[in-house]
Amino acid sequence: MTEAPSAADAPAPDEGAGVSGVSRRGLFGLAIGAGAAGIAIGAGAGATAGVAVGRARAEDAAASVYDFFGAHQAGITTPVQDHLHFASFDMMARTGRDDLVALLQDWTYAASRMTQGLEVSATGAVGGSPEAPPDDTGEAQGLAASGLTITFGFGPTLFELDGVDRYGIAAQRPVGLVKLPSFLGDDLQPDESGGDLFVQACADDPQVAVHAVRNLSRIAFGRARLRWSQLGFGRTSRTTASQATPRNLFGFKDGTANILASDSAALDEHVWVASSDDPVWMAGGSYLVARKIAMLIETWDRVRLSEQDAIIGRDKGEGAPLSGGDEFTDPDFTATDASGAAAIPATSHVRLAHPEFNDGLRILRRGYNYVDGNNDLGRLDAGLFFLSYQRSPEQFVRLQRALSTDVMNEYIRHVGSGVWAVPPGVQPGSFVGAGLFA
Amino acid sequence: MTEAPSAADAPAPDEGAGVSGVSRRGLFGLAIGAGAAGIAIGAGAGATAGVAVGRARAEDAAASVYDFFGAHQAGITTPVQDHLHFASFDMMARTGRDDLVALLQDWTYAASRMTQGLEVSATGAVGGSPEAPPDDTGEAQGLAASGLTITFGFGPTLFELDGVDRYGIAAQRPVGLVKLPSFLGDDLQPDESGGDLFVQACADDPQVAVHAVRNLSRIAFGRARLRWSQLGFGRTSRTTASQATPRNLFGFKDGTANILASDSAALDEHVWVASSDDPVWMAGGSYLVARKIAMLIETWDRVRLSEQDAIIGRDKGEGAPLSGGDEFTDPDFTATDASGAAAIPATSHVRLAHPEFNDGLRILRRGYNYVDGNNDLGRLDAGLFFLSYQRSPEQFVRLQRALSTDVMNEYIRHVGSGVWAVPPGVQPGSFVGAGLFA
Repeated sequence: MTEAPSAADAPAPDEGAGVSGVSRRGLFGLAIGAGAAGIAIGAGAGATAGVAVGRARAEDAAASVYDFFGAHQAGITTPVQDHLHFASFDMMARTGRDDLVALLQDWTYAASRMTQGLEVSATGAVGGSPEAPPDDTGEAQGLAASGLTITFGFGPTLFELDGVDRYGIAAQRPVGLVKLPSFLGDDLQPDESGGDLFVQACADDPQVAVHAVRNLSRIAFGRARLRWSQLGFGRTSRTTASQATPRNLFGFKDGTANILASDSAALDEHVWVASSDDPVWMAGGSYLVARKIAMLIETWDRVRLSEQDAIIGRDKGEGAPLSGGDEFTDPDFTATDASGAAAIPATSHVRLAHPEFNDGLRILRRGYNYVDGNNDLGRLDAGLFFLSYQRSPEQFVRLQRALSTDVMNEYIRHVGSGVWAVPPGVQPGSFVGAGLFA
Repeated sequence: MTEAPSAADAPAPDEGAGVSGVSRRGLFGLAIGAGAAGIAIGAGAGATAGVAVGRARAEDAAASVYDFFGAHQAGITTPVQDHLHFASFDMMARTGRDDLVALLQDWTYAASRMTQGLEVSATGAVGGSPEAPPDDTGEAQGLAASGLTITFGFGPTLFELDGVDRYGIAAQRPVGLVKLPSFLGDDLQPDESGGDLFVQACADDPQVAVHAVRNLSRIAFGRARLRWSQLGFGRTSRTTASQATPRNLFGFKDGTANILASDSAALDEHVWVASSDDPVWMAGGSYLVARKIAMLIETWDRVRLSEQDAIIGRDKGEGAPLSGGDEFTDPDFTATDASGAAAIPATSHVRLAHPEFNDGLRILRRGYNYVDGNNDLGRLDAGLFFLSYQRSPEQFVRLQRALSTDVMNEYIRHVGSGVWAVPPGVQPGSFVGAGLFA
């Protein structure tokens, strides 16, 4: 293992002409901090003279460069970016433990660069030999880091598939990391569910997120294959108080009561795996649940406003609970309306999901809206790509069960699903999930 | 027909409580200029007191509000926005001329509002009767106009379908408005091709573009139905000199030599239909060609850099022609390399498409990159959603034929196609395409 450079402004190593797309394992863990915004990466030996191979960095984008290395992976409490490219991968047949470790090392190296606004390798799109395919696919040249975060995790099948421990890690599987149980109304499609590995790329420029997934997919060639993927726009949560609460495709504000990045007590209680939790290698990590939730928006759009409000338990304009106040007023579930009925209906989404009725359970949501074209009936294939991070998958399971009587279920279909262990953050010189292989 | 208010700051009319989603024909043509950024639309009679129904406008977004009314439709020479939602519609069975006119009037009214950052009607998402479905689906509440433009046009089938003149307009059909001929390598899918009408929504926020198409689709209910649609990100052209040239998913700059909005002579020659052209109702209009071009990006990514450059005829890093200079240097097709061969290969894309070899033909391109998930082989379903505006569809046909020997064809598949007449801009008090029905 190569010792990682310690200086944040160390120039990226030159892999040499003619080396393209092959192992970067000797270089993973390169410590490029946010302070490296000014780096101009030198052209490789084979580069055309005068061609700058580094991605240009917009001056005003420096603020949206997030560290890749840290105690936790970025992309969980990071201020939610505008765009998502999510990808689920399956390991390919005849791969072994060494292949998996090498893939994670290669992904770590590439992610540590791309999140800093750099190309996927030192030679990038045009700095390698003209007689070789470029390392970097090139469509992000000239674009800023755009707040890119890349988050990785491990699905239940990575630990054991059909009873086979392909990678010698079955004994390390977190007890709670199992395929989610069936829920009422599930209409899950296998080709939009599950996966051995996930990659969540979030950025304020969709081309930057797409570039990341494309290049990670390319790096995985021969070892892991894209199983399914999802583009999302219009975040449906916020993780900082300064982010306005966005709206989902039902037209309602979504994420008002989300756990904020500043609430470290809530994060420790509900999101981060504690060092006292099993297994030890997950300490500082989390669990991701993804649910692709198709919305029957044409049907919803025909529901009268008062009924929409009643289903959600908040008013559509302001997002205030129906018990009164503004968006950030706590709901008062004891309040009644003029007729003496509960102001916030007992079947409303906000009440069914509220910690007060769920033993204090909370999750950190990080979803996005999506539109995947339209169906044969001329209806937009649209909905919510729900993403939540929690200390244990059980939190999601219990909350989802609590929603079984949610009237909103008439207007949604869960069509995709997955759960993954999200290892803790990466230390410089190491790779994502290293603790699993210690 | 209601006379349109002439004052740019006229408040939006109140449609009255309980009127929801029905005809807005009496109100189309509302003249809301860019100067109306500060309008606060009053709540309808049935609105909850204190609820603001106007969409909030970000202070710094005022500059990206484009007039809906004008000599030409917006969204053609408008500085290309970051996001696209394109939709093709078919008129439904048993609709007649009045239905078509009414739809165009309703669409005009809604588009004239949404492009100004307003809700789809005066009562919007929450200003109508609580006992009625809202007029506006609501997901754009709180979002700025975001540079939204909405552009409309008419396909060949609108004028005549299977020999039937459904709307009494067959005699008005432009001679050149016919289904595009087949091109070598076409692999067109009927469910991603054609359509009686198109709507092109471009905005700097994808949620704003999606909101526009969703609401226009909703307004069309019972009259026209979404046939196919496409989301795009990462514009692949520029229409102003101040816009940096973006990159397509081959990693190359795209749109370097595009016609700029400032080049009125070129626009008049190549893009706008002249008043001396037939038919008269198209004067000031244009023709749109859409081509969904799937890129075999994994295959392309394995091509060596020198070959990629040779296929395009420009270098990947800078975008300069292979004859030398920088991105904006004119290609010198007579230049030779050290071996005496043409510096810009005769089979290169830039040469095959260059006006010098095509009788001076030019088109205005306005395309976007797209990613539609992935296929069963784990490959991203990605490519270029090519959009071009031209004075006659023949310009595209001739250029596309000139590309028949383009080596790039090995790496692309045309999977969708359409051509539409784009009527001139709308005058306040009128509706899009009114001249067709005069």
